[in-house]
Amino acid sequence: MASRVLIVYAHQSSGSFSAAAKDAAVEVLKSQGCTVEVSDLYDMNFKATATAEDITGELKNPEHFRYAEETKLAWEEGRLCADLTEEQRKVKEADLIIFQFPMYWFSVPAILKGWFDRVLTLGFAYTQEKRYSQGIFENKKAMLSFTTGSQETMFSPNGINGDMNVTLWPLQNGILHYCGFQVLAPQIFWAPAEAPPESRSSMLEAWRVRMQGLLKEEPLSFTPMCCFDSEKGFQLKPEAVQKHANRDFGLTVGIHLGKPLPPNNQMKAGVNGCHGSNGSCIKDL
Amino acid sequence: MASRVLIVYAHQSSGSFSAAAKDAAVEVLKSQGCTVEVSDLYDMNFKATATAEDITGELKNPEHFRYAEETKLAWEEGRLCADLTEEQRKVKEADLIIFQFPMYWFSVPAILKGWFDRVLTLGFAYTQEKRYSQGIFENKKAMLSFTTGSQETMFSPNGINGDMNVTLWPLQNGILHYCGFQVLAPQIFWAPAEAPPESRSSMLEAWRVRMQGLLKEEPLSFTPMCCFDSEKGFQLKPEAVQKHANRDFGLTVGIHLGKPLPPNNQMKAGVNGCHGSNGSCIKDL
Repeated sequence: MASRVLIVYAHQSSGSFSAAAKDAAVEVLKSQGCTVEVSDLYDMNFKATATAEDITGELKNPEHFRYAEETKLAWEEGRLCADLTEEQRKVKEADLIIFQFPMYWFSVPAILKGWFDRVLTLGFAYTQEKRYSQGIFENKKAMLSFTTGSQETMFSPNGINGDMNVTLWPLQNGILHYCGFQVLAPQIFWAPAEAPPESRSSMLEAWRVRMQGLLKEEPLSFTPMCCFDSEKGFQLKPEAVQKHANRDFGLTVGIHLGKPLPPNNQMKAGVNGCHGSNGSCIKDL
Repeated sequence: MASRVLIVYAHQSSGSFSAAAKDAAVEVLKSQGCTVEVSDLYDMNFKATATAEDITGELKNPEHFRYAEETKLAWEEGRLCADLTEEQRKVKEADLIIFQFPMYWFSVPAILKGWFDRVLTLGFAYTQEKRYSQGIFENKKAMLSFTTGSQETMFSPNGINGDMNVTLWPLQNGILHYCGFQVLAPQIFWAPAEAPPESRSSMLEAWRVRMQGLLKEEPLSFTPMCCFDSEKGFQLKPEAVQKHANRDFGLTVGIHLGKPLPPNNQMKAGVNGCHGSNGSCIKDL
């Protein structure tokens, strides 16, 4: 059972709803016996931009600076800058990481994007061989917890912002699952800024209740690595396509097979009964 | 016809493929008589994080700092910091904005996300009333031009990264179209770092050729604002759903109506014959 939790928190104000959600997480998780660390990105004045300064010592190729390659080498040789080394220590020690932020422009705020860009370096967080269901952090869990500016209806499949499941795909599949994390369903606080105090309280209360069982939750479903053919550009193997031919829905939001998207694939665990979580084999498809 | 172009460019190295793509754009567009400005974000040491320092003078509510509200007020009163004011001038003067970047974690690098977060402020770039097809920048065009680390197959609908159309939705719908921009099809340079020199050259050549006709291209299709009911949480009006009931595909990647996604909806103009671009009315659905 997970007991070491890292909260990566990105809001400027301690009076915000995001701060209250973070504080509630610290309190409830500690009361369950968890060790909780918080990276308060604005308070830390966290550097968001990926630059050569992230590497101490000589660059391998200063004329053609390539961030992924240079940080990989620096990581191997212990030459990453101090703040990255410290964040990577926190990640390494964590069983669960909660990202708490206000959604900015259908994604994370730049300061948190910078945390992803700079902390999850090649070698440390992924390699060509260790990705997705075979990813480096396969024994860790991660989740997004965020506030929106828009009402829930606007992010419904009929809403003007489009289906929230689509908006979450690049973050949950492209970052979290890519590094191997078991992705817990997101905690979405719909438009708390416009909500009356009692709604804000009940949103926070629901979060506190959820956290009681958070460490035992099933993660979201993704298509396991073994379904893809590494010899053929990591496309779905014909047998996987075939096994799925008569299903009503695609495999995931991203790997939709030209079918309707499986409803709530990025928002609720267990909605794709047709295949298991991270580790499940092709025969389960 | 567009003649003032802003290129927002985000790569650390002048020896990169991204730099070559940017340089090609400057050259070809200038040779067509365009005025071209470049915001070279790393070179400018562009601040990525949205903080209270972006506002000069007193904050309205320092205890409960809310970035959108404070920057809106500051913008109205001419109290935004100098770099934001300057970027907003460039946006205001541009007929076309090209964002040139390497894809980081299924999205833009943090420094470019910071440009979106900080430059496209409430009031200047959008209001509650002026969004999407009625957006403030409806007479401007914008497009993404980016390199990937992955091969194209990995971003196909059968590929392990999922359909690139899904990954582009939050950027193209959630940021560009949200502000009203007519979104031109993205220019995607697939994995140039791994490509042999002749492939890199031919990718750049294709980009140069495309730019000859760029200003005359049709934009991508989105569902116009008039199809959504502002009284009912901006969900699709029943008559719009009904008009679309017998179609094979959803309206867009995000507003999929529980149907298969319209193929290449976020990557090619004109693929949704069933409805027009930004300005088209509900009767065209």
